[in-house]
Amino acid sequence: MKKISTGTYKIESPVKFLEYCAVVGQKEKEGPLGDYFTNYSADEYFGQETFEKAETQMQKEAMDHVIKKSGFTEKDIDFIFAGDLLNQCVSSNYCVRDRSMQFFGLYGACSTMVEAIILSSMVIDGGFARRTIAITSSHFCSAERQFRFPLEYGSQRPPSSQWTVTGAGCVLLGDGIMREEVPFVDKVCPGKVVDMGITDINNMGAAMAGAAVDTLKRYFEDTETTPEDYDLILSGDLGKIGHKIVIELMGKDGYDMTNNYDDCGKLIFDAEKQDTHSGGSGCGCAASVLTGYLLPEMQKKTFKNVLFMATGALMSPILNQQKESIPGIAHLINIKI
Amino acid sequence: MKKISTGTYKIESPVKFLEYCAVVGQKEKEGPLGDYFTNYSADEYFGQETFEKAETQMQKEAMDHVIKKSGFTEKDIDFIFAGDLLNQCVSSNYCVRDRSMQFFGLYGACSTMVEAIILSSMVIDGGFARRTIAITSSHFCSAERQFRFPLEYGSQRPPSSQWTVTGAGCVLLGDGIMREEVPFVDKVCPGKVVDMGITDINNMGAAMAGAAVDTLKRYFEDTETTPEDYDLILSGDLGKIGHKIVIELMGKDGYDMTNNYDDCGKLIFDAEKQDTHSGGSGCGCAASVLTGYLLPEMQKKTFKNVLFMATGALMSPILNQQKESIPGIAHLINIKI
Repeated sequence: MKKISTGTYKIESPVKFLEYCAVVGQKEKEGPLGDYFTNYSADEYFGQETFEKAETQMQKEAMDHVIKKSGFTEKDIDFIFAGDLLNQCVSSNYCVRDRSMQFFGLYGACSTMVEAIILSSMVIDGGFARRTIAITSSHFCSAERQFRFPLEYGSQRPPSSQWTVTGAGCVLLGDGIMREEVPFVDKVCPGKVVDMGITDINNMGAAMAGAAVDTLKRYFEDTETTPEDYDLILSGDLGKIGHKIVIELMGKDGYDMTNNYDDCGKLIFDAEKQDTHSGGSGCGCAASVLTGYLLPEMQKKTFKNVLFMATGALMSPILNQQKESIPGIAHLINIKI
Repeated sequence: MKKISTGTYKIESPVKFLEYCAVVGQKEKEGPLGDYFTNYSADEYFGQETFEKAETQMQKEAMDHVIKKSGFTEKDIDFIFAGDLLNQCVSSNYCVRDRSMQFFGLYGACSTMVEAIILSSMVIDGGFARRTIAITSSHFCSAERQFRFPLEYGSQRPPSSQWTVTGAGCVLLGDGIMREEVPFVDKVCPGKVVDMGITDINNMGAAMAGAAVDTLKRYFEDTETTPEDYDLILSGDLGKIGHKIVIELMGKDGYDMTNNYDDCGKLIFDAEKQDTHSGGSGCGCAASVLTGYLLPEMQKKTFKNVLFMATGALMSPILNQQKESIPGIAHLINIKI
């Protein structure tokens, strides 16, 4: 490892994306990235009895696929870093229950996938692990029930709201001497908690945009680079509104984000046709776009140098009812091939 | 770092407990460890309007105290590792909101304090940080409302139930050249998820005991040591029932835990006089006993070589309603001075 500046770190040991898999639902399969998602289920229960167990099942399928395809066994993998949106992160806990790997549970809201990759990169580079798994998920039905209203209520959604992605993403990270030319983690920049004072839980993109801007600016300053130095800059789930705010705020500080900046929440759904308003959200949004679309495209060298940043809104329904504003966080990695 | 065996790691860079602080409530102050707890509040709201904000306030006070007393500023501290029991880990998120340090949110239920210390030790030893903060909390009133019933219901508690500790614990970890003889992290052993098939949410100690036994056995095998090699073995919040199960199960495998094994949940309350049934629990249990009692006693060299293991029950109320059993995890560290 090499500390580049105050908060950005160069990963010097090889931390390669040895294997990756996305598992998504029917709506995501029908979206613009549908052709990329080869693992999906038309059954929103994924063969289980409840939405919560369905979400665990998605994680299990993604992890099984990754381990099987990698040729490694659980014994070859040191740690799992995982978390999700459900209270007490149960999707992850119950996915991991049947595994023999040591486990670190995370909560970073929708930033969890990148938080897991950053910590994986650090423990691999620090010599504590040869290989780790990073995994997360979200499910529209379990998230609606928990954060808003049960689906049966048929509640209205304002235009600024986002649609929780039903999806899980899993990556196997490590040195993988046998796998030469695969995408790898080159730099990491962990996020700070930033609160823009927004209290509208139907406008998460705006609430998280401040954290995204904070991380991007710190990263560009630390590395002495600009947006133009990258093939693609991809945020996790800011959606249309948050994406626009980031372009505006970065522009005010002289960073032109108009050419190569996109958002997973914008990419995964066709907002007009699929009635998803401001776009996709949830831990599974960044995770499934990373594993289903970005990494395969990097493998094909469509993109060779990418900033991938997952954002999280760190409030709870109860704190929102207590009139608290919504703190955000954005964790960023620089992926290269 | 040096990997001792499959899952235990020797921390080779100095990861010292540079500063530490516990902040607790009135009941904890009135308990057997009361004289150790110099920071406490007779007001269960800690001057705030709600129990959730009270819990955040405890974390803030613990962190402020640690930073101030250490002589460092936030700029000298690289990362915060934090988490708690509240949905979406809001006590930690809102505590960290006002800080300028990079943040990793964790969810390990009541194992969070040791999870945070293990990850801190790894990133410091790996060269990614000079100093980190590990912090967690729990609050009886916010936990009852969220996990069981609002206090106003006055619900009955079975004898196997535990009493959530109102307390926060914070440590500053790092190399601290100026602080020579302080307790330090010598070895770490992250936990695996173990499910004993127990579904009774009023018997968490039993649910977590399997994970505790798994971690202890792996640690003793990896290090080729036995319980007798340590001055004290302290688990987080197994309570009377879990503590007894651990002694029994370890005894069956030839490990005599009868002489030097205790549990924070047993130490913090006088179960008879304070009507806490099986003992204390919650993230704040292990955290406040570590920072209020154990580390100060190690500083006085009452104990020089200690195994400290925090256990977590990884279920949620909703998964319990869906008749799922309770997975447990136990993270362990070896502290020396």
